[in-house]
Amino acid sequence: MKKFNTSPISGMQELLPNLQYQFNHLKSGIMAAFARHGFQSIETPIIERMDILLAKAGGETEKQIYKVVKTAESADSADQALRFDHTVPLARYVVEHMSALTFPFKVSQVNRNFRGERPQKGRFREFYQCDVDVIGWQKLPLAYDAEIICTLTDALEVLPIKKYLVRVSNRKILSGLLEALGITHHSTEIFSIVDHAEKIPLTATEEHLADLQIGAEKTQLLLDFMQIHGSRTEVMAKLQNLSIKNELFQQGCAELDKVLELLDSHNGQGKSQIIADMMIVRGLDYYTGTVFETIAPDYREFGSVCSGGRYDNLAQNYTDQSLPGVGGSIGLTRLFAAMCDAGLITVDSGKTIDICLVPISESEFSAAENLAQQLRKSGKNIDINFIDKKLSDKIKYASKVSDRMVVIGEDEAKTGNYQLKNLLTGEQSPLEV
Amino acid sequence: MKKFNTSPISGMQELLPNLQYQFNHLKSGIMAAFARHGFQSIETPIIERMDILLAKAGGETEKQIYKVVKTAESADSADQALRFDHTVPLARYVVEHMSALTFPFKVSQVNRNFRGERPQKGRFREFYQCDVDVIGWQKLPLAYDAEIICTLTDALEVLPIKKYLVRVSNRKILSGLLEALGITHHSTEIFSIVDHAEKIPLTATEEHLADLQIGAEKTQLLLDFMQIHGSRTEVMAKLQNLSIKNELFQQGCAELDKVLELLDSHNGQGKSQIIADMMIVRGLDYYTGTVFETIAPDYREFGSVCSGGRYDNLAQNYTDQSLPGVGGSIGLTRLFAAMCDAGLITVDSGKTIDICLVPISESEFSAAENLAQQLRKSGKNIDINFIDKKLSDKIKYASKVSDRMVVIGEDEAKTGNYQLKNLLTGEQSPLEV
Repeated sequence: MKKFNTSPISGMQELLPNLQYQFNHLKSGIMAAFARHGFQSIETPIIERMDILLAKAGGETEKQIYKVVKTAESADSADQALRFDHTVPLARYVVEHMSALTFPFKVSQVNRNFRGERPQKGRFREFYQCDVDVIGWQKLPLAYDAEIICTLTDALEVLPIKKYLVRVSNRKILSGLLEALGITHHSTEIFSIVDHAEKIPLTATEEHLADLQIGAEKTQLLLDFMQIHGSRTEVMAKLQNLSIKNELFQQGCAELDKVLELLDSHNGQGKSQIIADMMIVRGLDYYTGTVFETIAPDYREFGSVCSGGRYDNLAQNYTDQSLPGVGGSIGLTRLFAAMCDAGLITVDSGKTIDICLVPISESEFSAAENLAQQLRKSGKNIDINFIDKKLSDKIKYASKVSDRMVVIGEDEAKTGNYQLKNLLTGEQSPLEV
Repeated sequence: MKKFNTSPISGMQELLPNLQYQFNHLKSGIMAAFARHGFQSIETPIIERMDILLAKAGGETEKQIYKVVKTAESADSADQALRFDHTVPLARYVVEHMSALTFPFKVSQVNRNFRGERPQKGRFREFYQCDVDVIGWQKLPLAYDAEIICTLTDALEVLPIKKYLVRVSNRKILSGLLEALGITHHSTEIFSIVDHAEKIPLTATEEHLADLQIGAEKTQLLLDFMQIHGSRTEVMAKLQNLSIKNELFQQGCAELDKVLELLDSHNGQGKSQIIADMMIVRGLDYYTGTVFETIAPDYREFGSVCSGGRYDNLAQNYTDQSLPGVGGSIGLTRLFAAMCDAGLITVDSGKTIDICLVPISESEFSAAENLAQQLRKSGKNIDINFIDKKLSDKIKYASKVSDRMVVIGEDEAKTGNYQLKNLLTGEQSPLEV
């Protein structure tokens, strides 16, 4: 017999049933939170036309794309590929179905994306992302920026993490500051330096800024700026203390203030504390206003738990129509792996069967079936063990798939008096149907 | 601006939000039924190694496989592809994780598969299949054949179809009959003729059998055999009347009798009537015992609604271990499209938002947020319309996304006395929180 490698392809998460159960539970919990906040779920094909995928992408993304070729075709003719995120398919979807949609279009996508990256810890080639977006028609009020953050923090409640820190900013603030300082020609570098500042020592950030030769005073101002974080009132006071007379800067401050004000009543209600933090700029040029990143303070090694922001135009590559939006995403596959590593999720904690019924012999099969059907009516997950082995083997099976068992012998089948046995404690009590 | 084709790739289903909502509802309903019957959900990567996929496949299947190539790689080196069904990945999964699984392994897979077929009505290139399987360790009692049928018919209850006819047989019966008639050298052709008999006129079937030159008597016997269908007792009597002295034939009859006996108490309880039907043999060689196909008698044009059977060995290509199984599948994407065509599902029937809140001005935003949070606690899907337009536009939005609305003005925000308006009837009543 030929030897096959039966492991999943590296970089692709494959879970044992107990873990899959927990993964599904978190995924449904997130989807339910999105629905409660009025987001409509859509699902686009996993395969897209290459020109759609590459209309904007380039560089790294293009190299990571999985092309798709029918066996009979030549690969050179490949004009289809697997999607690498939810944003490009969403843009195509909105343009394609524009006349049938209601705007603002509140939309969620919880599904798998694909990137042919070199697999490494925390990087997956196939991964679930849980996205929410609001797409406006020509304009979109700031209240939706708050709504996105509110929705995502509600969704995070389902995870076995006790607290989150949501760090919010607005890219116009730093852009305006750079205008005021007359160093917009270094915008790209400075946004990148701020974006990476937390991952490297302060002295390294100082050096990177020094390399730009913008002068000691402006360098220090930027270093001080990055450190500004805290409650809405604290941060607003500190930003105004900088006395920056620039329209964009002031507009950014006003927008941030507004978004945080709208989140005030939500802040601290659940597990999330929401703060303003100038260190947050998000790497992508794509974002144009509000930006946010969420971390789990007790598990900083998880990195960003959920992030997003405001963009001026969702679908500028495919339509002339202006479609401003705001959105955010939870990287569930990566997060799930991190939570497993941290012991927050274990393979033992996910028994999916509520009760396992154990008919002693074939004569009790139909009694077991009838009992199962009754118990299932109340939504319980009921397994019946039909294996043709001795009782001890049947009980062993039951204890592997469930924590509770009902043994059905001749007497029980006749009288309908069933005993529910707790397989963890050994306790037994009459079964309530 | 370059013109892009923004339609989904042909042969891939893409739904508007209201239809997606209904699709998701059916999918979750099916998954919940599988869970209630004690099946554990797993999810394997969409991409598999080509040699795993092709270990058994060949011919048509191989031509339909979507190969996957990283952009940087040459397509000739492609050794990965998209899975075309759930069975091959399940076989790999069971071999890979054998020591961690509990047998019999009751497993469900509800996910997308891919085939590069020529798109046509009722054929999709990307499609959801909802599979349940029980995999035994060396042997697997017949009770699991009944359990699979019972589980699938329970799952079908969620669909907007009023009745089903489940037609069950056992391939050993026809195999044994062919042995008894001494025409096993025509097995493949005869199984195929029986499998296709319903799709062509009776005279054509007669001709196909005549072509085999097995003699008029045997031809007539086969024609009569195919017509045998009905209740368990009727069919068993007719089969015994054939007076076939063949062990395999008798074993098939006994197995079918047993499976139907186990289903007796379930038969007719829901929407499904379960009968024995010798016309059912299933095209695939893969099946070795029980086979079944379900149709919707009021919608015969839907074809098979769900089907499956017993197989001797799930993973014979990847392991020496004997893993007999029984399983079945609902082809949800195809079925959903058929139900839409038949008007059983319409785009208007799926409003996902329970109540849309309409704050008249920005001053009522926070009252709206607070009210939304309260209503969401009871699991309701609540949207808030934050658009900066006149009230009539806001109400128009509300009526598109929901059937119920609460308008929040200065008074309502102050007093907390909210009125719930039914947008279909115009009726208004105090909102209960």
